[in-house]
Amino acid sequence: MSSDTGGVGYDVVVIGAGFAGLVAARELVKDGFDVVVLEGRDRVGGRSSTTTLAGVPVDLGATFVGPTQDAVLTLAKELDCLTEPTYCRGANLIRWRGKVRSYRGTIPKLSPLGLLDIGRIQWQVERLGRNIDITKPWTASRAARLDGTSLGGWLRSVGASSSSRDLMAIMARVTWGAEPDDVSMLHAVRYVKAAGGLDRMLDVVGGAQQDHFPAGTQQIADKMAAELGDRVRLNAIVSRVEWSDDAVAVTSSGGVVEGRRAILAIPPAHRQGIDIAPPLPIGYQQLAQRWPQGALSKAYAAYSRPFWRDQHLSGQALSDQGPVFITFDVSPGDDGPGILLGFVDSRGFDALTPEHRRQTALAGFAALFGPDAENPIEYLDHCWGAETFAPGGPTAAVPPGAWTEFGPLLRQPAGPLHWAGTETADEWTGFLDGAVSSGQRAAADVAAILRS
Amino acid sequence: MSSDTGGVGYDVVVIGAGFAGLVAARELVKDGFDVVVLEGRDRVGGRSSTTTLAGVPVDLGATFVGPTQDAVLTLAKELDCLTEPTYCRGANLIRWRGKVRSYRGTIPKLSPLGLLDIGRIQWQVERLGRNIDITKPWTASRAARLDGTSLGGWLRSVGASSSSRDLMAIMARVTWGAEPDDVSMLHAVRYVKAAGGLDRMLDVVGGAQQDHFPAGTQQIADKMAAELGDRVRLNAIVSRVEWSDDAVAVTSSGGVVEGRRAILAIPPAHRQGIDIAPPLPIGYQQLAQRWPQGALSKAYAAYSRPFWRDQHLSGQALSDQGPVFITFDVSPGDDGPGILLGFVDSRGFDALTPEHRRQTALAGFAALFGPDAENPIEYLDHCWGAETFAPGGPTAAVPPGAWTEFGPLLRQPAGPLHWAGTETADEWTGFLDGAVSSGQRAAADVAAILRS
Repeated sequence: MSSDTGGVGYDVVVIGAGFAGLVAARELVKDGFDVVVLEGRDRVGGRSSTTTLAGVPVDLGATFVGPTQDAVLTLAKELDCLTEPTYCRGANLIRWRGKVRSYRGTIPKLSPLGLLDIGRIQWQVERLGRNIDITKPWTASRAARLDGTSLGGWLRSVGASSSSRDLMAIMARVTWGAEPDDVSMLHAVRYVKAAGGLDRMLDVVGGAQQDHFPAGTQQIADKMAAELGDRVRLNAIVSRVEWSDDAVAVTSSGGVVEGRRAILAIPPAHRQGIDIAPPLPIGYQQLAQRWPQGALSKAYAAYSRPFWRDQHLSGQALSDQGPVFITFDVSPGDDGPGILLGFVDSRGFDALTPEHRRQTALAGFAALFGPDAENPIEYLDHCWGAETFAPGGPTAAVPPGAWTEFGPLLRQPAGPLHWAGTETADEWTGFLDGAVSSGQRAAADVAAILRS
Repeated sequence: MSSDTGGVGYDVVVIGAGFAGLVAARELVKDGFDVVVLEGRDRVGGRSSTTTLAGVPVDLGATFVGPTQDAVLTLAKELDCLTEPTYCRGANLIRWRGKVRSYRGTIPKLSPLGLLDIGRIQWQVERLGRNIDITKPWTASRAARLDGTSLGGWLRSVGASSSSRDLMAIMARVTWGAEPDDVSMLHAVRYVKAAGGLDRMLDVVGGAQQDHFPAGTQQIADKMAAELGDRVRLNAIVSRVEWSDDAVAVTSSGGVVEGRRAILAIPPAHRQGIDIAPPLPIGYQQLAQRWPQGALSKAYAAYSRPFWRDQHLSGQALSDQGPVFITFDVSPGDDGPGILLGFVDSRGFDALTPEHRRQTALAGFAALFGPDAENPIEYLDHCWGAETFAPGGPTAAVPPGAWTEFGPLLRQPAGPLHWAGTETADEWTGFLDGAVSSGQRAAADVAAILRS
């Protein structure tokens, strides 16, 4: 960057108007700084996106919140975004080894032996987390060993039963949009610990699926964007960041903006799409290549009523036969439209035609909730991995080796460049809550530097 | 893409003027097709790049060739590019656990026990490869198990000695520019088998380092480019590929070109930098995120004479203490300038200032070849991972899970889009030879379709 651009322009250029970027901008504006937010999409919210189905708001991306997620809960309260408990009266269903059965609680009772085994696996995963500092997992004495294998490899090495392995595969799919063999065991152990344990991470009552927003999660982003006003620029796809010690120049499809600092509030994998000049130390580039996003899809079907409730079913289900592998009931009430949400394995689903996707998802719902599920009044799905801009989700599926080699750089500022995004959070990494706290952390860091 | 562009323009648009892209273009031109090659850099050759040091051509990237690499050897012969044997008279050196000793052969004799252990590891790695079909490694009965852990995790699981593990780490660094914990064990086993075994891959005499080109490797690319003439367009960074069943429109910084088919002759990781519309099936995008490039640097020092030859040293050395960890003598003769080539661990090297990099590399040479090595007449280094355009090298360091889940897509055409590059080759994947054969394969596939 030519030296005559130093100090001109904004105090801070934020790249990405997901939760992390908007929160960072909001905090900095509160502190009196001059901020601009560049967003490549034509909307704010990032991996939070709300639309309607049968007149009911439904979340294509981030949906649920739960206890201890204080960063996002406090933000939502400030912005008057209300939650309600996720429906969970009645029995859950499991489709397993060709049969559908009902169960209660988070982990289905497969067989006395199967239950013992998954209990052992859960205990071992959490025990491995005890000596790991989630803020710097690479320092743990067993870090290299745990990072040298995948969750799948570890499950084999401890002789997990096929049922336990299949349950953990479902956990990996819904959590990271990836298979157990993709994900470093160190990442898995750290991620579970950052979410307060497997129960906290997977439960509805008392866990991360306890509540959802009847008006959707994107309203939170929309309200932050409304506060920020014309500081937020949509359709501004950033292609280049030039930097010196005390200035940045950010080129997007909307032109060039200059500032004193930049916050890149985007997933590590997407840092690759931005040409940074002068280049950062090699480790940053290697990190971006080794922190891939997973892929997860979602299908929603709306019915005139939540008919499964009549059969004392919660609408929650688990299936070992994809592509629909987890469901929830997100209906607004007993009498209005009944809405089933299905998490869908993107492999073998995203590539289908829209009509074929619909048939496949509805067949999955019907296998669990009966033939009535095949005739919804409305249907929609969303394939995050198939998006053209910033594809993938729900979060990073970090492979073996990456944390121990490149973890120290994950959020370490490089010159005037700072990093945010849920992947960089200590607690609730990968969740809405992590996105919010990462934006707060980056804003605080930048504010301290700009004031000094 | 609008339908009125179908069939207009070139028969084939090749993206990337590395060896794979140039070979593909050359074959297609020979067959009478109309071809254009778009290259983002201001030169051809990709990861092959030759410059001069003390008047002697030196290769910043791909350097060596050896027996069974028939694709590249035949091509070089056709283009009158001559090889000569890599210098290997005298003793090799090893710097290990703080001491420098001499040895002969490829694998140093550490101690009788150490030698036994590395022999056992080599035997086990090659035995695991026996049942793997290198063209489709995901079909092997043990594929999921091998792909579920890393080379590092596997070495721990079989109780490899610390010397064996350190030697394999050196092998991983020079081969993939990555650590053993980064690389899937299935990838490691398949890669070694594709190179004809560990001895063939690592040896000088009878192996992949047997010969080099006194005029450098880039001359091969330059001669192909000269044949192709103005069909090769430099400084054309491709940003977008639109496609329909029988046509492509490729947008680069040099404008839009249209064709019937495209060959993307770039590393899988760099497929991410190109916006493909309509989007490909999700697996292609996931593959690109899970096939990262490693990072490896090179340092060259030129002396008035190859003084180490006077002490009956081959110039070949191995060190367990980086950043210079492997050296070769690439001097043109006994009396001319003496040239030492050092492979350098990019971590902790690339980020240094140029002067500090020089000091560090020369100290590494001096630790092996004595204080005379600290005073070269010329010095240069190259950090492939720190390049702004298409950074990384020497080849992909494929993490656990990727081959079994996404391997089938590695070179499977998607509509009119074909894939080339050494990462897509069956034999000598990751070497110059694999690049050449991948270009031939892609050209043959495209020619067959265009003729049908």
